[in-house]
Amino acid sequence: MLLNGQPSRTLWPAAAQDAVTVLDQRALPHRIESVVLHTVDDAVHAIAEMVVRGAPLIGVTAAYGLALQARVDASDAALERAASQLKSTRPTAVNLAWAVDRMLAQLLQRKPMDREATAWTVAAQLADDDAAVNERLGVHGVTLLRSLAQRTPGRPLNVLTHCNAGWLATVDWGTALSPIYHAQAQGLRVHVWVDETRPRNQGASLTAFELREQGVPHTVIADNAGGHLMQRGQVDAVIVGCDRVTGCGDVANKIGTYLKALAAHDCGVPFWVAMPLSTLDRSLRDGMAEIRIEERSAREVTHLTGRTRDGTTVEVQLVPDGTQACNPAFDVTPARLVTGLITERGVVPATREGIAGLFEERRPGAH
Amino acid sequence: MLLNGQPSRTLWPAAAQDAVTVLDQRALPHRIESVVLHTVDDAVHAIAEMVVRGAPLIGVTAAYGLALQARVDASDAALERAASQLKSTRPTAVNLAWAVDRMLAQLLQRKPMDREATAWTVAAQLADDDAAVNERLGVHGVTLLRSLAQRTPGRPLNVLTHCNAGWLATVDWGTALSPIYHAQAQGLRVHVWVDETRPRNQGASLTAFELREQGVPHTVIADNAGGHLMQRGQVDAVIVGCDRVTGCGDVANKIGTYLKALAAHDCGVPFWVAMPLSTLDRSLRDGMAEIRIEERSAREVTHLTGRTRDGTTVEVQLVPDGTQACNPAFDVTPARLVTGLITERGVVPATREGIAGLFEERRPGAH
Repeated sequence: MLLNGQPSRTLWPAAAQDAVTVLDQRALPHRIESVVLHTVDDAVHAIAEMVVRGAPLIGVTAAYGLALQARVDASDAALERAASQLKSTRPTAVNLAWAVDRMLAQLLQRKPMDREATAWTVAAQLADDDAAVNERLGVHGVTLLRSLAQRTPGRPLNVLTHCNAGWLATVDWGTALSPIYHAQAQGLRVHVWVDETRPRNQGASLTAFELREQGVPHTVIADNAGGHLMQRGQVDAVIVGCDRVTGCGDVANKIGTYLKALAAHDCGVPFWVAMPLSTLDRSLRDGMAEIRIEERSAREVTHLTGRTRDGTTVEVQLVPDGTQACNPAFDVTPARLVTGLITERGVVPATREGIAGLFEERRPGAH
Repeated sequence: MLLNGQPSRTLWPAAAQDAVTVLDQRALPHRIESVVLHTVDDAVHAIAEMVVRGAPLIGVTAAYGLALQARVDASDAALERAASQLKSTRPTAVNLAWAVDRMLAQLLQRKPMDREATAWTVAAQLADDDAAVNERLGVHGVTLLRSLAQRTPGRPLNVLTHCNAGWLATVDWGTALSPIYHAQAQGLRVHVWVDETRPRNQGASLTAFELREQGVPHTVIADNAGGHLMQRGQVDAVIVGCDRVTGCGDVANKIGTYLKALAAHDCGVPFWVAMPLSTLDRSLRDGMAEIRIEERSAREVTHLTGRTRDGTTVEVQLVPDGTQACNPAFDVTPARLVTGLITERGVVPATREGIAGLFEERRPGAH
């Protein structure tokens, strides 16, 4: 997608295959900066500290982390240690483990001397696959928007999204925002309600930033406002991304997603989840009982970083001294509240049958 | 309630009856400051700029605003102009119009020369009544908490609240927090989940501040987190305040309340609204259609004030330059999601019949 008017991805491997540059998402929206990862430890740090974030992007970054490891020591033990280190950074998004396990399986099949070259090839393939999958999500998702837009002639379609499941959460295109970008390319008028997404404000900082870069009309709202807008008919659809989806269609996604799903259900607004198949964890049946929810630092709630009038970036404290906070980073939206899953193979119901249909030779549930 | 360990109210008329001092709620939690109101324009400004806020407190502040007007010109025209100016500051909370109309009716009955003295007496009575009413809310509300606590022996009762409906939103005691303070006084262990309440962060700044001052255990959470905590059984009850309640029990309250009510309903958690009768607007039947929702400045969403490490208070920008925002300040929770209304006359169902029962000679619905 566009960054300063130029096509860009969120990460770029060096031609010499000795480093990977990533866009530093902590500096956005106020500064465009990048960070160069030279070692697997750099990759672990980038994921844990959310220099990169978003389920698909942390998967691809971890794959490159393994490639960086293969450069210096491609033994079974070193790769397995690096894989386990990478997987332990963030527990909720399944794409991370999915990408690392795929890489590891392919590398361990090969002789150690061939592993470095293979690692860079496979990581690059995962990155390209992510972009291609997300483009397909957009192709399928935009058909849903087109059909809704027939009911709202003469005004833009209003789509609400939570957190950032856009280009910046992936290698390219985004998941939840890919249908929006496809709509824009097709001349379908769309306006996006952007949940600011406390506590880390990925909506206010990242989604607003990337929509502005692509020229998509949007309005930032407090996370509290979405239900009210739905009650008043000002939201035509909700589209969110996801970090792990069970075989029954329960969706782990950024904290607060469940509240928006409840409001959409109460107000008769379609609630779609953009789900690359890499985010599916068919080993799980019960999202509430089985998905581990990452608990992050209380400081993300009690403090916040922004830009002062003179252009410097500062951290400010929001609460009285000594105040405790609690910071679960994800929640689980039960499948009963999800209208459908937008995947690279089509849109299916968030049910065991709908999901199983994605893996059949002919997929009756998909369109 | 306690401020720096000393009993205090949120506003204090001067003994000379020529000014009113109010606690400046914009400076909290980082600084304890007050503002002296000398004229009705000062009172209008204090309400509009949220130096004082909270439905009961803006009502009493407006009453004192009329008293300040009566000092300089107690003619019908001057009082009516001041009343209309005060009532136009904030449209959603009905207590404001209720207090101003009560004052005006009493003043216009009297001769202009008697009006000034009457005004100060009536305003003081409204302030005392507010404190007394809120104390009664606590007496009735704590019986609900006691009965819930029987089901959770051996651990504190977890109560979630949204925004600030505590002491700082009233003259004394608070509405939603009054049952908490009564529980504390009775030795019932309570822990409060404090929604930070974007965009103005009344929870993180005011509720956390006043709970700390009274020594009540509490934890601040992002507004997004409450649904997740309810899903996991970590919330035993929700208690919120209100700004206007219809005769059918629909509740206008701080933006985001509706989302918490949906989650409470979905998770089987009781959702109570602390409602002094002054917040009831029996002229309305349909909250969604009839209650006017105040739209506030976009800047409250795009910018935020906090304290830097060196102790200064600064405003920071959260979004990319040029980002639009939308800021509805209240939403309407339909009566079907409200477990009960806690009033000074008892707890009643949020139904036409329940509310009517409050005004019968014998009140079968109340306890």
